[in-house]
Amino acid sequence: MLDLILTAEFNASYVDAFKYLGAGIAMIAGIGAGIGQGIAAGKAAEAVGRQPEAEGKIRNMMLLGQGVAETTGIYAFVIAILLMFVA
Amino acid sequence: MLDLILTAEFNASYVDAFKYLGAGIAMIAGIGAGIGQGIAAGKAAEAVGRQPEAEGKIRNMMLLGQGVAETTGIYAFVIAILLMFVA
Amino acid sequence: MLDLILTAEFNASYVDAFKYLGAGIAMIAGIGAGIGQGIAAGKAAEAVGRQPEAEGKIRNMMLLGQGVAETTGIYAFVIAILLMFVA
Amino acid sequence: MLDLILTAEFNASYVDAFKYLGAGIAMIAGIGAGIGQGIAAGKAAEAVGRQPEAEGKIRNMMLLGQGVAETTGIYAFVIAILLMFVA
Amino acid sequence: MLDLILTAEFNASYVDAFKYLGAGIAMIAGIGAGIGQGIAAGKAAEAVGRQPEAEGKIRNMMLLGQGVAETTGIYAFVIAILLMFVA
Repeated sequence: MLDLILTAEFNASYVDAFKYLGAGIAMIAGIGAGIGQGIAAGKAAEAVGRQPEAEGKIRNMMLLGQGVAETTGIYAFVIAILLMFVA
Repeated sequence: MLDLILTAEFNASYVDAFKYLGAGIAMIAGIGAGIGQGIAAGKAAEAVGRQPEAEGKIRNMMLLGQGVAETTGIYAFVIAILLMFVA
Repeated sequence: MLDLILTAEFNASYVDAFKYLGAGIAMIAGIGAGIGQGIAAGKAAEAVGRQPEAEGKIRNMMLLGQGVAETTGIYAFVIAILLMFVA
Repeated sequence: MLDLILTAEFNASYVDAFKYLGAGIAMIAGIGAGIGQGIAAGKAAEAVGRQPEAEGKIRNMMLLGQGVAETTGIYAFVIAILLMFVA
Repeated sequence: MLDLILTAEFNASYVDAFKYLGAGIAMIAGIGAGIGQGIAAGKAAEAVGRQPEAEGKIRNMMLLGQGVAETTGIYAFVIAILLMFVA
């Protein structure tokens, strides 16, 4: 009887452990957003260097594109939170 | 006798666990399609900036190339579905 | 005695399992050939756009370079086949 | 009684093992800083090739940007140290 | 008594197994040297296409830079050798 209880407890811990591992792995998706938004920032700086008077438009375009690139990072964040506290 | 049944059950669960792990890993292939199609989109935007009047042709070329780049992502999707529900 | 035989059998299966895992992991090397050959294709398309009359030479250069880039992918393919059927 | 002590000792070792694994994995973040700072160095060399007289300003900009790119590498370093000696 | 000897033997094998796994993982660092040196080779070819008479200087610069890029690959090679035969 005690054996069965201990086994059930171990199994629950085991599943929890993989939730936390999954939460950490999910955050790897942030690599993409970081690289992509950095490329956008670099190209925007390059564009300002070529057309300084278009600074405002270039900043708007960069921020708009970076906002779209942020989405997958936010998905990963949400999944990690769900894995840790809800699932 | 009970031991043997329990062992067989454990083994089946073990194989199932790795199917689900494999399905998740397979989807990593989506990194490629995402990066490649983003590069195509960026170069297309650059091309429109240089030759705005060729917008239609540039869009066609971009969509054609992105369609080809989508294929490996679709392969991964199919493999993941097969791993989860068929294999 | 039966125990020893069962253990030996388990060990053999265990080694086989990691052979198959290694074969799958080896194929990840294909990422490199895919990206590199795609870069070559993109640069070649760019070059044809700048000098359409040099199409033949550009194609030769692209195919030569892509052939070299293919080698590591072939190494991985050979290692995976060896892992599955020979090792 | 001895069994319980041995189990507790095993569990402590097990947790320690994953601390060391985590410390090693954390350092993978250095890939990003290395690639990014190398891109910065390459573009700076390119810029000096185009405007040699702006060497001082280009170096300042490169070092400023590389300093920012260093931060995530430092975070990973700190986390690895914490995992090994504090956590 | 025999149990203790068998356990000690198992532990030694277990540590050896992870040495070999670590040696294999260490070699992944070669990705960086391969990509970086390929980028250098590509840019050098591009530079020769623009200034064919500067071929000697371009080759020297490429080989110098590739030598620096080789270092992390050599570190990984050394660590893998140490893991397999010394550690």
